[in-house]
Amino acid sequence: MELQLEKINHILEALPYLIKYSGKTIVIKYGGAAMIEEDLKASFAEDIVLLKYLGINPVVVHGGGPEINQLIKSLNLNTQFVRGHRVTDEPTMEVVEMVLTGKVNKQIVSLIQEKGGKTVGLSGKDGGLTLAEKYLMEFEDENGKLQSLDLGLVGKISEVNPSLIRTLQAEDFIPIISPVSVSKEGKTLNINADTMAGAIAASLSAEKLILVTDTPGILIDGQLVTGLNKQKIDEYIRSGQISGGMIPKVECCLDAMRGGVKRAHIIDGRVPHSVLIEVLTNQGIGSLIE
Amino acid sequence: MELQLEKINHILEALPYLIKYSGKTIVIKYGGAAMIEEDLKASFAEDIVLLKYLGINPVVVHGGGPEINQLIKSLNLNTQFVRGHRVTDEPTMEVVEMVLTGKVNKQIVSLIQEKGGKTVGLSGKDGGLTLAEKYLMEFEDENGKLQSLDLGLVGKISEVNPSLIRTLQAEDFIPIISPVSVSKEGKTLNINADTMAGAIAASLSAEKLILVTDTPGILIDGQLVTGLNKQKIDEYIRSGQISGGMIPKVECCLDAMRGGVKRAHIIDGRVPHSVLIEVLTNQGIGSLIE
Amino acid sequence: MELQLEKINHILEALPYLIKYSGKTIVIKYGGAAMIEEDLKASFAEDIVLLKYLGINPVVVHGGGPEINQLIKSLNLNTQFVRGHRVTDEPTMEVVEMVLTGKVNKQIVSLIQEKGGKTVGLSGKDGGLTLAEKYLMEFEDENGKLQSLDLGLVGKISEVNPSLIRTLQAEDFIPIISPVSVSKEGKTLNINADTMAGAIAASLSAEKLILVTDTPGILIDGQLVTGLNKQKIDEYIRSGQISGGMIPKVECCLDAMRGGVKRAHIIDGRVPHSVLIEVLTNQGIGSLIE
Amino acid sequence: MELQLEKINHILEALPYLIKYSGKTIVIKYGGAAMIEEDLKASFAEDIVLLKYLGINPVVVHGGGPEINQLIKSLNLNTQFVRGHRVTDEPTMEVVEMVLTGKVNKQIVSLIQEKGGKTVGLSGKDGGLTLAEKYLMEFEDENGKLQSLDLGLVGKISEVNPSLIRTLQAEDFIPIISPVSVSKEGKTLNINADTMAGAIAASLSAEKLILVTDTPGILIDGQLVTGLNKQKIDEYIRSGQISGGMIPKVECCLDAMRGGVKRAHIIDGRVPHSVLIEVLTNQGIGSLIE
Amino acid sequence: MELQLEKINHILEALPYLIKYSGKTIVIKYGGAAMIEEDLKASFAEDIVLLKYLGINPVVVHGGGPEINQLIKSLNLNTQFVRGHRVTDEPTMEVVEMVLTGKVNKQIVSLIQEKGGKTVGLSGKDGGLTLAEKYLMEFEDENGKLQSLDLGLVGKISEVNPSLIRTLQAEDFIPIISPVSVSKEGKTLNINADTMAGAIAASLSAEKLILVTDTPGILIDGQLVTGLNKQKIDEYIRSGQISGGMIPKVECCLDAMRGGVKRAHIIDGRVPHSVLIEVLTNQGIGSLIE
Amino acid sequence: MELQLEKINHILEALPYLIKYSGKTIVIKYGGAAMIEEDLKASFAEDIVLLKYLGINPVVVHGGGPEINQLIKSLNLNTQFVRGHRVTDEPTMEVVEMVLTGKVNKQIVSLIQEKGGKTVGLSGKDGGLTLAEKYLMEFEDENGKLQSLDLGLVGKISEVNPSLIRTLQAEDFIPIISPVSVSKEGKTLNINADTMAGAIAASLSAEKLILVTDTPGILIDGQLVTGLNKQKIDEYIRSGQISGGMIPKVECCLDAMRGGVKRAHIIDGRVPHSVLIEVLTNQGIGSLIE
Repeated sequence: MELQLEKINHILEALPYLIKYSGKTIVIKYGGAAMIEEDLKASFAEDIVLLKYLGINPVVVHGGGPEINQLIKSLNLNTQFVRGHRVTDEPTMEVVEMVLTGKVNKQIVSLIQEKGGKTVGLSGKDGGLTLAEKYLMEFEDENGKLQSLDLGLVGKISEVNPSLIRTLQAEDFIPIISPVSVSKEGKTLNINADTMAGAIAASLSAEKLILVTDTPGILIDGQLVTGLNKQKIDEYIRSGQISGGMIPKVECCLDAMRGGVKRAHIIDGRVPHSVLIEVLTNQGIGSLIE
Repeated sequence: MELQLEKINHILEALPYLIKYSGKTIVIKYGGAAMIEEDLKASFAEDIVLLKYLGINPVVVHGGGPEINQLIKSLNLNTQFVRGHRVTDEPTMEVVEMVLTGKVNKQIVSLIQEKGGKTVGLSGKDGGLTLAEKYLMEFEDENGKLQSLDLGLVGKISEVNPSLIRTLQAEDFIPIISPVSVSKEGKTLNINADTMAGAIAASLSAEKLILVTDTPGILIDGQLVTGLNKQKIDEYIRSGQISGGMIPKVECCLDAMRGGVKRAHIIDGRVPHSVLIEVLTNQGIGSLIE
Repeated sequence: MELQLEKINHILEALPYLIKYSGKTIVIKYGGAAMIEEDLKASFAEDIVLLKYLGINPVVVHGGGPEINQLIKSLNLNTQFVRGHRVTDEPTMEVVEMVLTGKVNKQIVSLIQEKGGKTVGLSGKDGGLTLAEKYLMEFEDENGKLQSLDLGLVGKISEVNPSLIRTLQAEDFIPIISPVSVSKEGKTLNINADTMAGAIAASLSAEKLILVTDTPGILIDGQLVTGLNKQKIDEYIRSGQISGGMIPKVECCLDAMRGGVKRAHIIDGRVPHSVLIEVLTNQGIGSLIE
Repeated sequence: MELQLEKINHILEALPYLIKYSGKTIVIKYGGAAMIEEDLKASFAEDIVLLKYLGINPVVVHGGGPEINQLIKSLNLNTQFVRGHRVTDEPTMEVVEMVLTGKVNKQIVSLIQEKGGKTVGLSGKDGGLTLAEKYLMEFEDENGKLQSLDLGLVGKISEVNPSLIRTLQAEDFIPIISPVSVSKEGKTLNINADTMAGAIAASLSAEKLILVTDTPGILIDGQLVTGLNKQKIDEYIRSGQISGGMIPKVECCLDAMRGGVKRAHIIDGRVPHSVLIEVLTNQGIGSLIE
Repeated sequence: MELQLEKINHILEALPYLIKYSGKTIVIKYGGAAMIEEDLKASFAEDIVLLKYLGINPVVVHGGGPEINQLIKSLNLNTQFVRGHRVTDEPTMEVVEMVLTGKVNKQIVSLIQEKGGKTVGLSGKDGGLTLAEKYLMEFEDENGKLQSLDLGLVGKISEVNPSLIRTLQAEDFIPIISPVSVSKEGKTLNINADTMAGAIAASLSAEKLILVTDTPGILIDGQLVTGLNKQKIDEYIRSGQISGGMIPKVECCLDAMRGGVKRAHIIDGRVPHSVLIEVLTNQGIGSLIE
Repeated sequence: MELQLEKINHILEALPYLIKYSGKTIVIKYGGAAMIEEDLKASFAEDIVLLKYLGINPVVVHGGGPEINQLIKSLNLNTQFVRGHRVTDEPTMEVVEMVLTGKVNKQIVSLIQEKGGKTVGLSGKDGGLTLAEKYLMEFEDENGKLQSLDLGLVGKISEVNPSLIRTLQAEDFIPIISPVSVSKEGKTLNINADTMAGAIAASLSAEKLILVTDTPGILIDGQLVTGLNKQKIDEYIRSGQISGGMIPKVECCLDAMRGGVKRAHIIDGRVPHSVLIEVLTNQGIGSLIE
């Protein structure tokens, strides 16, 4: 009985969060180790199903993982490189889409379904969910002049129409979204999964955007910072304390919040059940931006 | 992080039960110590709120507790006794109703409301919820002849119209029901709370009927029996191993199941969170009749 | 045939009022003699049922009547008096609530139900219907200085959430409301039934607020005034022609109208069917404030 | 106040009927004097509006009146007669339809609208409401042989599709129906208004069919019989005590009841407010067949 | 197969128009030759049914045609003439209404029904659809002074309540409307069908108003002008290039557009399927005002 | 005008089919040349969009095409062959799924979207749409004994849950379905697209199942047979006049019809707009089984 009571007390500690998030939408960018290791995959799937049964509406946007590169390698595709960046040409884009939408997406769909959820796999192309435009990477050249770099079929989301997601949520289906979209001209474009998650979260006025990463969160001088806001982030970026790959992640969070999302989180996907720990416990996990 | 993971794992152990009971109705007879001790009252209130936020629909029918006798005593009511049983005359019935519907019911309403639930207190008189008829206690006299004993304004439920409960559930209100009803002739009648809970559970085709008692469950030769069915119960009654006050409780359970309730439970209200332990853990608590 | 025709003609005279009030809500404060004398009780119950079947939505808020004092007396409660006013301490409040919510309310529920209505008894505590705060009576002391008097557990309504009433009305249940509420701190507070009716009427943007009283209406120099507005009332109060217990009644009416109620009436509950006379006949009854 | 009370008491006497007929459909065949004399027309219109505001759904099917013959005469149409019966040829049918649907129907629509109802005039042609087939009058010739007489464009209803009526009732429109229909072959056919009302009442499983006539009801040996059933009617027809034009009326009532109508009435339209007297008073009026 | 492909290609050319008009309302004034010649009548009926099955909501307002004059003549009505205009007295109005509402309307109802549509015939009197006031024709006398001419029971629409049309459209009924209305005083008034169609189109914020006429459209110097706007029309009227009976038609179109209609068309009803040609082909037909 | 009239007449010839199929579901197996040649792809996409705007609900199940083999070849997968049949091992299944669900499906989704439809790409795994079990090919060995051949990850549909399709149809999304499913054990299985289409059509009680093939239809002695039924098909199979790859196609049609589909068609996808020709013209195309 002791043990059972302890269990129940643990469940009851989640009650304030159930009351707070009941009926709300949480958009989760799923990627990294959490998508590779079997244990973490299973724990993530359980998290999504539990959220749904707790009356919270999860929407998952997933990244690609190592499988894209494997297939590109197996096919001996001759990819061009410009300034060290791979250019996504049409054959590469085809592989990217096949792996993301035809393999990774369906694995996630099936995994969560096995745990008891009703998942529907989508890409940004389905039901007019997103429209994208070509993304030109900007950089400063040696002379400090702003240049733009054409990385091929890489895009950024210009419009989101969430009516398909709303339709599916109304019938308790969980949308699992692959970060591929299409341009007005009908070109298939590869989208960064973080920014795709952010754009979709904004279109849904989501309660939370959670980026599942392979870091403990935002580290400043090697220490995890659990709470930040726009002002602090700006300072840290200017001081160089936030740098490299973390910059686009925090910017994606800030963009989503400008678009109407209440809170954004960068959490550690290497910890089992990190999503539930974030949503349902007092201590939470990772960094909260609000 | 260890602790948080443990918490989340405890929550996840409840997932199969959430999947099983999502959207279902559970009728709970609330009484005994769980209605008297402050800690148990708080733990019961939390159980009800959590069930609601887990997508399960609780309906509470409460008993009376010691407060009825206190008021009767304070008022020096001259109650008649027949064969050792108190006869509920009109002044007594008035006190019973005032305490049950005007005091106990509203305390439960407020307590659960403080924990985050939207409760509505009802008696069996409201919205035509129940109709009762006079109940005559049957007993064998010295000569083994069946006699019936008139205990005054004591009734049994003859009809339940659950439309008011359905209306309230559709808008996420939790009904808290006082065991007082009315006869066709307009007489107010006192109803045994167990049988009231059973009748309401049957009318709702409830998934479970849970009787919260001051015993560990059904004890046979001093040992708790965790699972029984109609056949076994009949045997135990015949053999006298189930006897006294436990007989009406198990009969109330069997009646409810005949009326369409899936499972009935007799659990120990002296254990904190006994309702949640029953609904959400593998081991459960008390005795299950199915 | 003559008599039948006369009846039908009388019914037809009500047609303009049916057209005007069809689908509208009318909040009625029920109290005084109309709640005591058997004939008046029956006639009031019929009025409410008829209104409902005529497509008008009545909401009843009732007062207490002599039964509270009787029980206080029977229990020999030691009530404190401050400046001639009884202070509502906890034991008194308990009695007040039991009588109002557990006895008077259920009597009205049953009475109207017998006449054919589907009534649901509520108090201000149910479904988060009302929130109250302590009410301090203000008065001028001998030096003309404003003082406030603490009368104990007496409150005034600070918030009304009519969603429970709307839910019940949508399914044709008639709410019967007991004037007891709760404060943020969880204290049970006794509310003046007139102001409770006014606050609820305002929250529902009711078509009419009707105060059923033991006076013919507003009397000026001993004469009934059938129609008044805010300006006239202010004049009469300044001139002292409206005084005593009538002042809070007219102020309650004016408050309700500021809150969105179209018309308020103070009518004579000692006249049988006074509510229907007010709603359905050309001459009406009592005083109309608009 | 006396008078007002009397009025209210008269209204209250109708309460049991409101409870009984609330939300039910009553089909009324309107014809005879009630359609000609100004006073009776106004009283009928008031009856219909009041029924609607009392929550009862009236459907009116009207007859023709003298206006058809006037126009036929003014146009000097050469009508053929067979065995004393006028044959409805195409020019005559055109006049019949214009008068019924274009004049009489719209007069009734406007009259009831003036009294406060929302009426919509239809004929059996609108919205696929009815389908008719040619009606051959059967008679025995001199030799007792059954012959059939072709009266031209006269029909009987073979199918009713009440979906248009249901659509209108759901939005509180009152259908006023002209007894003209169309055959499968597209021929316009004149329908007896009594049988049209009966067929429509059956298709709606109406609570009542009321035939408004120029007789006090069913007279047996000169005496009004207020209550009959199928068996008695059969006896009276066999004995010749019901004869002539009353036979098709009672047969229409019996047909409607076979089709699912609960009760049928033959009432005296020459009495003002006869419809309301029938529906709302204890004594009723005319003959009831059940 | 060639022929079938050609057919399909023709259907496919309509696709952009289906996408554009899907779910929208188009109000069509039906009159002239299209209402007289059998072939044109059949082609018009098919047009309306096809529009409905293409997901577009047609509303038809029809004119009178020669049948009114025939009946007036047959009845030898003594019509007065003022300044060359026939004055609509009561007997004439009665004939007008009978022919329009009782004959022409029902012929259209039946014709479209035979082709597969679910039509409901209405006049402006039904369901409070329209309210009209007397129309006084203004003219300049010999001295250039503005005079007004009383033409009797001729009206113009002062109010439209489209709720009946909306109710019918929601259940896929097609309203066919006769241009007869009623004044506040209860007088039946004859309405110009063009302006009736325009007023109804405005009340429905229709996508298109189409006037089916006996002209190719707006002719300027004998040439059809396919596209015009308010400014051009004003110029043409000032210059006298638009004159006579075309002036009220273009003004009706401009009025409707001021009231919220998107586009108005004056098309040639003598061309079979002119309505479909206008709605579904690239070239369209007649004159477009936008 | 001539040309426009011809167009309109062609559209009108489709009216009887619109009336017949309005609101009905048509399941189309899409494959072969129609999925390869640009012109045919565009014409198919237009067909689907037009059907939707005509109020008919298309559901598309597509096959694979040559792209699967290309990728298998590029990856140098070592496929095993048993009795001349390729065995689908896990690496092959992975390629099959990526191409079908990640490439072909999304191309169809985008193509139809460009023409104006709102498409959603699904596989049999999404939303629990289908469940499959391993399919063992049966054949007779040399001794005439029935043997079964294990072709690896090839399945047949054992259950269809069409609720996801219904959800999407209710909001006017067009489902495009890839023939990949999952077994109870979580194995991904390749499904024959014809039988997948048939099973889905049956679960939806579709009005029609259309198999788009590279044949003119069912040929008997080299001649197209336009209409057949079960009996005739059985005869032709026994006589060997239907043989080879046509046998599974006709059996798939018969299975679907046993499951509740009204009619099945085998049509020539090499003819542009063959789907519309089948649905909307009198002559139709290919072979009809009913």
